Amino acid sequence: MLERLKKTVCDANKALPAAGLVAGTSGNASQRDPETGLIAIKPSGVSFQDLTPEDIVIVDENGNLVEGDLKPSVDTASHCYVYRARKDVGGIVHTHSRYATVFAIRGEDIPVLTTLAADLYGKPIPVTGYATIGGEAIGEEIVSHIGNGSAVLLRNHGVFTIGRDAAQAVRSATYVEETAEVSYLSMVLGPVQPLDSAAIDEARTWYLKEYGQKPVGSGA
Amino acid sequence: MLERLKKTVCDANKALPAAGLVAGTSGNASQRDPETGLIAIKPSGVSFQDLTPEDIVIVDENGNLVEGDLKPSVDTASHCYVYRARKDVGGIVHTHSRYATVFAIRGEDIPVLTTLAADLYGKPIPVTGYATIGGEAIGEEIVSHIGNGSAVLLRNHGVFTIGRDAAQAVRSATYVEETAEVSYLSMVLGPVQPLDSAAIDEARTWYLKEYGQKPVGSGA
Amino acid sequence: MLERLKKTVCDANKALPAAGLVAGTSGNASQRDPETGLIAIKPSGVSFQDLTPEDIVIVDENGNLVEGDLKPSVDTASHCYVYRARKDVGGIVHTHSRYATVFAIRGEDIPVLTTLAADLYGKPIPVTGYATIGGEAIGEEIVSHIGNGSAVLLRNHGVFTIGRDAAQAVRSATYVEETAEVSYLSMVLGPVQPLDSAAIDEARTWYLKEYGQKPVGSGA
Amino acid sequence: MLERLKKTVCDANKALPAAGLVAGTSGNASQRDPETGLIAIKPSGVSFQDLTPEDIVIVDENGNLVEGDLKPSVDTASHCYVYRARKDVGGIVHTHSRYATVFAIRGEDIPVLTTLAADLYGKPIPVTGYATIGGEAIGEEIVSHIGNGSAVLLRNHGVFTIGRDAAQAVRSATYVEETAEVSYLSMVLGPVQPLDSAAIDEARTWYLKEYGQKPVGSGA
Repeated sequence: MLERLKKTVCDANKALPAAGLVAGTSGNASQRDPETGLIAIKPSGVSFQDLTPEDIVIVDENGNLVEGDLKPSVDTASHCYVYRARKDVGGIVHTHSRYATVFAIRGEDIPVLTTLAADLYGKPIPVTGYATIGGEAIGEEIVSHIGNGSAVLLRNHGVFTIGRDAAQAVRSATYVEETAEVSYLSMVLGPVQPLDSAAIDEARTWYLKEYGQKPVGSGA
Repeated sequence: MLERLKKTVCDANKALPAAGLVAGTSGNASQRDPETGLIAIKPSGVSFQDLTPEDIVIVDENGNLVEGDLKPSVDTASHCYVYRARKDVGGIVHTHSRYATVFAIRGEDIPVLTTLAADLYGKPIPVTGYATIGGEAIGEEIVSHIGNGSAVLLRNHGVFTIGRDAAQAVRSATYVEETAEVSYLSMVLGPVQPLDSAAIDEARTWYLKEYGQKPVGSGA
Repeated sequence: MLERLKKTVCDANKALPAAGLVAGTSGNASQRDPETGLIAIKPSGVSFQDLTPEDIVIVDENGNLVEGDLKPSVDTASHCYVYRARKDVGGIVHTHSRYATVFAIRGEDIPVLTTLAADLYGKPIPVTGYATIGGEAIGEEIVSHIGNGSAVLLRNHGVFTIGRDAAQAVRSATYVEETAEVSYLSMVLGPVQPLDSAAIDEARTWYLKEYGQKPVGSGA
Repeated sequence: MLERLKKTVCDANKALPAAGLVAGTSGNASQRDPETGLIAIKPSGVSFQDLTPEDIVIVDENGNLVEGDLKPSVDTASHCYVYRARKDVGGIVHTHSRYATVFAIRGEDIPVLTTLAADLYGKPIPVTGYATIGGEAIGEEIVSHIGNGSAVLLRNHGVFTIGRDAAQAVRSATYVEETAEVSYLSMVLGPVQPLDSAAIDEARTWYLKEYGQKPVGSGA
C-alpha cells in the first residue's frame, strides 16, 4: 500500500546525503498521506545509500506499525507527535547538518543576517531545550518552539524542519544549513549586527507574496 | 526565438551549482542578445537542477515579458537596470556564495591580499548599501558601486558580477568566491596587510596585457 | 587464499577517500579472518584509487608475511599488536581525517557535545601519547587508551578506530570525524559546555539497546 | 613530438582540479623530458576542464617556443629558471590551494605539527619573498628558498612544488594543502607547539628509508 508515498519518502531521505546534510545513518525524513493520515518514515539505522522504497515503514499517527519489515526510526514517536499537533504539517525532516548543529550545541538562535534568512524565516531560527531521544520529548520541543516557522534547532542534537510535504521540509533543511553556515562564518570574525525588524518584515512579506512560480505560503 | 541564447543562459545557470556557488533556487544568470537587445534570464524559484532552455524567460530591457511560460527571476528589474545603464555589459550573475556573502553580511570590502585579486580586480571588491529585493534598487546599488570592476557585494545579501557575456560573469563569480575564501581564512588568524598599491597596479596592468590567449580587456 | 577477505578489506580502504577521510596514500584499513586469525591489510604507499583486492597483503598476527607481492602498511606491526591484545577486535581503520587530526595536534580530547557523540562514544574520545611510526608503539598507545571505546586520537598524527570488522571501523571513523568537526566549529566561537554525565549515560544506554535494526553492542 | 610527455603533463594538470587544488584557469604543471631537456607546460589562461594533450606547449629550457599553437603559461620563465638551476627536478606544479595560500598571504611558514609533515618535509614549509608574475622572479624565489625540500609558499600568491616528475609534484601539492589545512585549523583555536626537532628528524629519516614500495628518496 501507499507505494507512491514510500517512493517519495525514500527519495526525500536520499536527498539528504546528496545535499551534504547527513552522514552515515543519522537523520530521517517522513511524510503524511493526506487521505489516510498514515505516515511513511525511514527505518532505524539503515544507511541512506542502501535505502529502497520497500524499506520505508508505514505507521499510524500514534506510531503503531501498519506496514514494513524494519523497525521505524527512533524519532518516529516525535514525528507522530508533531503530525498530531500540527494538522498543517505534511512532511518532517531531521538532520545533523554541521553548521546548524553548531548553533544547537552552543544553544544560540541563528540570527537574521541576510535577505535570504528574512525571506525564508522572517525571524531567528530558535533553539529548543534538551530532549531525550526515543520518545515524544523531541516532538514536544519542536511543537513548543517552531510557531509559524519551518525549522528548529534541537539543543545539543541537530535540526528539525517541517513543510507541506517531505520535499518542502528537505528544501527548508537545505536553507537552514546555508543560513547557519554564513551566519557562523560571519560570527567567527566578531559580533555582527542582525537586519533590523522593519527590513526583515518587508522582506518576509514580499517573499510570501512574490517569490517563485506560485504563492509560497507559510513554508520556506 | 533566441534558442541559442536560451541554451547559453541555461548552461550559465547550471554552472553555478556545479561550481558550488549556489544552493536550492537562489541565484541567477542572464545574458543580453547583442543584436536585439533582449535579455534571457532564469525563471523565479526554479531549481538549477530542473532548469531547461525552454524555462529561460526573454524580457526586453525594461523587463517586459517577451517570451516564456514562467515568471522571470525576482531580480529581473535589477538586471535590466544594469543592462540599460551599462551598454558594455552582456552578462550578469547573482549568487549567495558563502565567503563572499560573509563579507556582504559584515559590510566589509574584500581586500587585495593576493596577486590573483590584484590581477583580476585591481582594487578591493566593494560592498553596496542595503537594497530591497523585487524592484530596481539592487540594480542601482550595483551600478553606483561597481565602477570599472566586475563584482560587487550586495549588503546582507550576496554577490553580483558582470561580464561581456554570462560565461565571463560566471567566471568572475567563481574568482570572487575564491578571493573571498582565502581572504576570510587569512583574517580569521588576525589582521592581514593588503598588497601595497604599487604592487597591485603593476599586477593589474600586467594581467590585462599578458594573461591568457588574447587580451583580457577590462573584465575578470 | 582469503579472496573474500581481500575484497572486503579493499572495499573498506576505498571507502575512506569516498568518505573524505583520507587523501593521497595515507591511512589504511585491515580485517582479521575469524577462522584462521590471519590479517588482511593495505600495502604501504599505494594510492586508494589504484588499490585492487590482489594488492591486499595477508600477514599472521605477529606481522609475518603470509601472502602478497607488496610490502604491507608501515602500521602493520601496530595493527597486529591491537589484534593480539584485543580478541574482540575484527577490524581496524587509520585515517588523518582533518578535524579529528586537529584535536590530535592540539592534544585535546573530543568532548561530548551532542547526543550523537553520547550515543556512539559515551565519553570523550581520548588522545594518546606521541608514538614513533613503523613499530608497535602506536599499537601500544591504542590499546592503553581505547578502553571500551571505538576510537582514539594518536597524538600529532591522526585517528585509529576499531570494530567487529573493517566496515564497522570505517563507520566509526566517519562518525569520529563528524563529531570532531561540529565540536571544533563550536569551540572556535568560544568555550562550550559538554553534556552532563547523566544525559550522556542515559543516551549511551538507550543507544546500545534501541538504535538500528539489531542490538548495536559495544561498537560505534 | 613528445606525445607521451604532453599526455602526462595534460593528466597532471587535470589532476589539480580533481584534487580541489585549483579553480578556473589558475595554476599549472610542467615536466622535463630527461632525454631532450625540453619542457612541456600548460598554456596560459586555458581552463583545466577543456585542456587536451594537443594544447600542451613545448619550450626549451630557456623558455623558447619549440612546439604548440597556444601561448605557454605566464609562469613558464620561472619554471625554466628552476629546471636550469636544479638538474634533479623533473616536474613542477603551481597552485593557489586555499589553506597553503593563507600561509602565503600571512607570510608564515607552515609548521611541523604532524608526523605526516615530519615524514614528507622534515622542516617547516618556507614562505618566499614577493615576486612579480611573468618573468623569472618567481623562479629565483623558489630556488633560493626550497633547499632540499619539495615545496615553497610564494608570498601573497600560492604554492610551488617540485618532484622527480609532474606526478610527484602533484602529490606534493596535495600533501602541502593537507598539511596547511590541519595546521591552519589547529592554529585557529590558539597557539600550537610544533613537534620537537628530534621527533621530526627521526620521522623524516624513517620515512625516506621505509615508506612505500620502494625508497622514497628526497621527494615528498
